[in-house]
Amino acid sequence: MNSGEFRRRGKEMVDFVADYLEGIEGRQVYPDVEPGYLRPLIPTSAPEEPDTFEDILNDVEKIIMPGAASPACTELETVMMDWLGKMLKLPEAFLAGQVGEGGGVIQGSASEATLMALLAARTKVVRRLQAASPGLTQGAIMEKLVAYSSDQAHSSVERAGLIGGVKLKVIPSDGKFAMRASALQEVLERDKAEGLIPFFLVATLGTTSCCSFDNLLEVGPICNEENMWLHIDAAYAGSSFICPEFRHLLNGVEFADSFNFNPHKWLLVNFDCSAMWVKKRTDLIGAFKLDPLYLKHSHQDSGLITDYRHWQLPLGRRFRSLKMWFVFRMYGVKGLQTYIRKHVRLAREFECLVRQDPRFEICAEVTLGLVCFRLKGSNKLNEDLLERINSAKKIHLVPCHLRDKFVLRFAICSRSVELTHVQQSWEHIRQLTTDLLRAQRD
Amino acid sequence: MNSGEFRRRGKEMVDFVADYLEGIEGRQVYPDVEPGYLRPLIPTSAPEEPDTFEDILNDVEKIIMPGAASPACTELETVMMDWLGKMLKLPEAFLAGQVGEGGGVIQGSASEATLMALLAARTKVVRRLQAASPGLTQGAIMEKLVAYSSDQAHSSVERAGLIGGVKLKVIPSDGKFAMRASALQEVLERDKAEGLIPFFLVATLGTTSCCSFDNLLEVGPICNEENMWLHIDAAYAGSSFICPEFRHLLNGVEFADSFNFNPHKWLLVNFDCSAMWVKKRTDLIGAFKLDPLYLKHSHQDSGLITDYRHWQLPLGRRFRSLKMWFVFRMYGVKGLQTYIRKHVRLAREFECLVRQDPRFEICAEVTLGLVCFRLKGSNKLNEDLLERINSAKKIHLVPCHLRDKFVLRFAICSRSVELTHVQQSWEHIRQLTTDLLRAQRD
Repeated sequence: MNSGEFRRRGKEMVDFVADYLEGIEGRQVYPDVEPGYLRPLIPTSAPEEPDTFEDILNDVEKIIMPGAASPACTELETVMMDWLGKMLKLPEAFLAGQVGEGGGVIQGSASEATLMALLAARTKVVRRLQAASPGLTQGAIMEKLVAYSSDQAHSSVERAGLIGGVKLKVIPSDGKFAMRASALQEVLERDKAEGLIPFFLVATLGTTSCCSFDNLLEVGPICNEENMWLHIDAAYAGSSFICPEFRHLLNGVEFADSFNFNPHKWLLVNFDCSAMWVKKRTDLIGAFKLDPLYLKHSHQDSGLITDYRHWQLPLGRRFRSLKMWFVFRMYGVKGLQTYIRKHVRLAREFECLVRQDPRFEICAEVTLGLVCFRLKGSNKLNEDLLERINSAKKIHLVPCHLRDKFVLRFAICSRSVELTHVQQSWEHIRQLTTDLLRAQRD
Repeated sequence: MNSGEFRRRGKEMVDFVADYLEGIEGRQVYPDVEPGYLRPLIPTSAPEEPDTFEDILNDVEKIIMPGAASPACTELETVMMDWLGKMLKLPEAFLAGQVGEGGGVIQGSASEATLMALLAARTKVVRRLQAASPGLTQGAIMEKLVAYSSDQAHSSVERAGLIGGVKLKVIPSDGKFAMRASALQEVLERDKAEGLIPFFLVATLGTTSCCSFDNLLEVGPICNEENMWLHIDAAYAGSSFICPEFRHLLNGVEFADSFNFNPHKWLLVNFDCSAMWVKKRTDLIGAFKLDPLYLKHSHQDSGLITDYRHWQLPLGRRFRSLKMWFVFRMYGVKGLQTYIRKHVRLAREFECLVRQDPRFEICAEVTLGLVCFRLKGSNKLNEDLLERINSAKKIHLVPCHLRDKFVLRFAICSRSVELTHVQQSWEHIRQLTTDLLRAQRD
């Protein structure tokens, strides 16, 4: 949508809201629809080509308004998460469908998704061990539980361990910053020999530091054999899996119990929108289900409906699936693929530019929209360069450590980025580099 | 703001956004401001009388835009939470001010605030006990920890206990559905005699079922003596404390470690916005602080700035203080007080109407905007009445249990509610009651 259309459509939306409020007394306070009303009114998957804004807005009046906030909010979310799951070609087991045991839910952040998965896994292992040995207390079990991630995992994984009150151990990644079977198995054997209980593993697809990928096809089967919950955190990289040429990065997801990525990062859905799927929704729901009378409703024992309050930490929730519905329809799957591919192409363009300058080196494989690079030389030199870049305030880079190296990260992430921005940025960095090296010689 | 002005201002906002996006290349990618830039640009408390929309929008360009998303998002939140704290006349210790040890943060829901408080309290007691007895494991301590709330507390308190992996015990409330010292002390003595460790108590101001108030002046000192963290959940009632005539309901807050209420429930701020204050921000921050390089920044060791990511469960956050700023200025404190008072007046009006009909009884003291009532007679009779009311779909009531009684709840909560709606609702309920009683006789 260009700026002109945004102005026109935005103003129509303002009138839509005002009209709604002016006419609210004419609307029913409680909907007439029955649970499950929405799915048959909506296609079973996202459109390939864009729909018009007009069509979408008409559908809001026709499909959403009769279902009001409830059950429309819940039902649209379930269907949108199925749409998105199909776009990623997630295994059928993760979809809700009409009768599935899995399904998706919108969380606020990947941190919350990781925490929910860890808590569900914790409840599950505690119940299993207590069923086998009724004398065991929860405290005695929790002392022995161990969660795992690679040394490249996001800090929110460690935080989930602290919140959940369980140990988190870090598996050393390989030369490509990936978690591999051998390193995992070594730690598992040692921990089990010490009487500890491995119960949960987070595999990262697209790490924060350098967008590396844990080896799912290796660690997935180990998790299954060891009866450990496997959670996949693909917060950033997940969006790219809608392109067939990147889908192989998700191979091994079939071993996982839960999978999460953030459409708000790279799929044009506004913050916040973190998409999480589980294979067995009862694992998540069963973890902390409580049903006071003021939250009861007539359909809850029918098995017909989804109560998302059991799937998340907060009780209340916003109608976040609406923005997914609008974005998926306004871009179409092809439009979203085009957007992802453009970012990846621009990152590769930047990588080429870096490689042409012998003063620089590329520090990690460029798979998606992130380029890790540095000046050949000391960390101090690179820290000085970063200082110059960020002080100039024309572009902004966030650094990372890869092993003992201080590394600069060039991330393609703006909706409106073009080749010219990338080229100008590189020229700017080259110029600042030349200035820095000259200043150091003098 | 009436409908006509909403149409005009809404459309101006659409243009504001489009202008911003069209001119974005002319803006700096990183702000020039220094931490702490914002507070001196904004009054120290909310205005009594409304500001104009024009003034507010001008301030967005003048005050927010130069600070971009960071640090403006954080700094406006700290100042808005101070404004709101002052509106409630919270003790100074809860405010951030320039040098305070306390401060406020916007959470997504009261559930998350309760959970954060419980987790911070858990970390604090574990550290204290381990410092005294270095041999003690976290698991050994956690097995003995006990959290408390009244039997009227919201289900999210029990859920926080499950998530935190600690026991939660329920204190029987008194005849007015309030937690009192005697009942609390009885349970505490018994638990301590059994070797358990009381560490956390949630007092509720304005319970979900009947808007009762735990006796803070009684239970607060006990929490302090016993070295237990006192968290106050005033999710609904908190908004009313901005009126001097309701502020006494908050007396005893000085004993608390943390306090929370939801401006999104009753203070005209859109969902979600849950306001939480702590007396010692280090208690919250210290609980799970992690600092990977990609989240480091040049000001973090200066003590000058607030890193809200340590105050909450998610990492990312939205700019929710903007809506507080707009609402507080567009209504002024007086406008918000008028809004609260109108709801309370309408609830009392409904209570009067109920009391005039001898077929009905009032089931709990009406303090704010909730009226608990029922037909004199069996629970079955009241369940049938509720079924008729909700099936008619003219109004919608959510019931509760008070002890063994099934009770109907009439809640004043719409922004646009008027006396005529209350009167019509009551006439509607009376008519359905007459129909029900006639049908039962026949």
